[in-house]
Amino acid sequence: MADIWLTSLITDTPQEGFELAITLSRRGVKYTQPDGEVLHKLRPVYANDADSLTAASQVVAINFQTVAAANGYWRK
Amino acid sequence: MADIWLTSLITDTPQEGFELAITLSRRGVKYTQPDGEVLHKLRPVYANDADSLTAASQVVAINFQTVAAANGYWRK
Amino acid sequence: MADIWLTSLITDTPQEGFELAITLSRRGVKYTQPDGEVLHKLRPVYANDADSLTAASQVVAINFQTVAAANGYWRK
Amino acid sequence: MADIWLTSLITDTPQEGFELAITLSRRGVKYTQPDGEVLHKLRPVYANDADSLTAASQVVAINFQTVAAANGYWRK
Amino acid sequence: MADIWLTSLITDTPQEGFELAITLSRRGVKYTQPDGEVLHKLRPVYANDADSLTAASQVVAINFQTVAAANGYWRK
Amino acid sequence: MADIWLTSLITDTPQEGFELAITLSRRGVKYTQPDGEVLHKLRPVYANDADSLTAASQVVAINFQTVAAANGYWRK
Repeated sequence: MADIWLTSLITDTPQEGFELAITLSRRGVKYTQPDGEVLHKLRPVYANDADSLTAASQVVAINFQTVAAANGYWRK
Repeated sequence: MADIWLTSLITDTPQEGFELAITLSRRGVKYTQPDGEVLHKLRPVYANDADSLTAASQVVAINFQTVAAANGYWRK
Repeated sequence: MADIWLTSLITDTPQEGFELAITLSRRGVKYTQPDGEVLHKLRPVYANDADSLTAASQVVAINFQTVAAANGYWRK
Repeated sequence: MADIWLTSLITDTPQEGFELAITLSRRGVKYTQPDGEVLHKLRPVYANDADSLTAASQVVAINFQTVAAANGYWRK
Repeated sequence: MADIWLTSLITDTPQEGFELAITLSRRGVKYTQPDGEVLHKLRPVYANDADSLTAASQVVAINFQTVAAANGYWRK
Repeated sequence: MADIWLTSLITDTPQEGFELAITLSRRGVKYTQPDGEVLHKLRPVYANDADSLTAASQVVAINFQTVAAANGYWRK
């Protein structure tokens, strides 16, 4: 991958940090399946399956741990 | 998402922290499936499946780690 | 939920901390499925399934990490 | 549970710490299914299933993180 | 394995750290299944399955926690 | 288990640390299923299943977090 998509883990607010965690989660998928069309086709499958959605939320939670720690939990 | 839903990880009590962890877990789902109606339909499925409930509780546990660390574990 | 069930993560002993981790795990389920009768019916299903029990033990392990860190691992 | 089974997370060696992590993992199961006979019957099922064994090893790994941190990773 | 593939967890940027996390995740697979041809055959299966992709992204997220901590979260 | 297999979490290099994480993951399995012959029979099953391999890599990732922290991430 030639494009630069991640230059910092620091965000202004916890919500932006949460959104960065979502980006990280999707990038983790994209490195395994770079074909955007395939990903687009898979979307309706897992977006309508409760267990798939829980699993997706779990990956976000793990990445949010990293981003939150990087930001000192936005304590100030 | 234009709405602001997360401005701080700090809560007064561990119970409020736990409830914030639940909010984070649901938001993780909502970013993948923003359609509230679909989520509403899926609810009875996973809310009546033991393994789905355990998986949901696991995501809460991971997010609670983050919130608890942010709050210094409400030690004082 | 109006009731207060979590006022502190501090416990006297690691065993009490482990039991608090179990409480947290069950509460994570209860926020998703608050109907005690449904939970009661699901119990025999997952309590007799090896993989469900392992999954339940994993949630406890994650919550125990949080409680143990909160208590400085009961080092003294 | 009336019996005392966990009074400290401190162990002399990392191997004893790993074995404590196994104890914690089993106890996590036992709190959900206290009936030893049921557990005994389930054993041959998951002990012969590769994915169940991997899942069991994962719970041990999570508990070992806790025990290792408690012991300062036995650095000296 | 005789080859040297991991001499440091330090990277210049978070993106390189994320890519190292992917390498670690793949190596974790390769130690269990060293046969590159088998891995090559399995690829189309999991790269087209939404849940497999989420699971792969989760392993990357866990390894990224390690790499990010090693790098002090690239805070400066 | 009478044999001594883990006397330290400290390794010279991150790669040796990663290999120790693999050892820990296998030991976690072995404590549940000590029969080497059974494990040998299970190997071809999970070594040819993409999801099993991802799950195995995840356990390694969790154990690697522990080993890396123990070694101060081999920062110098």
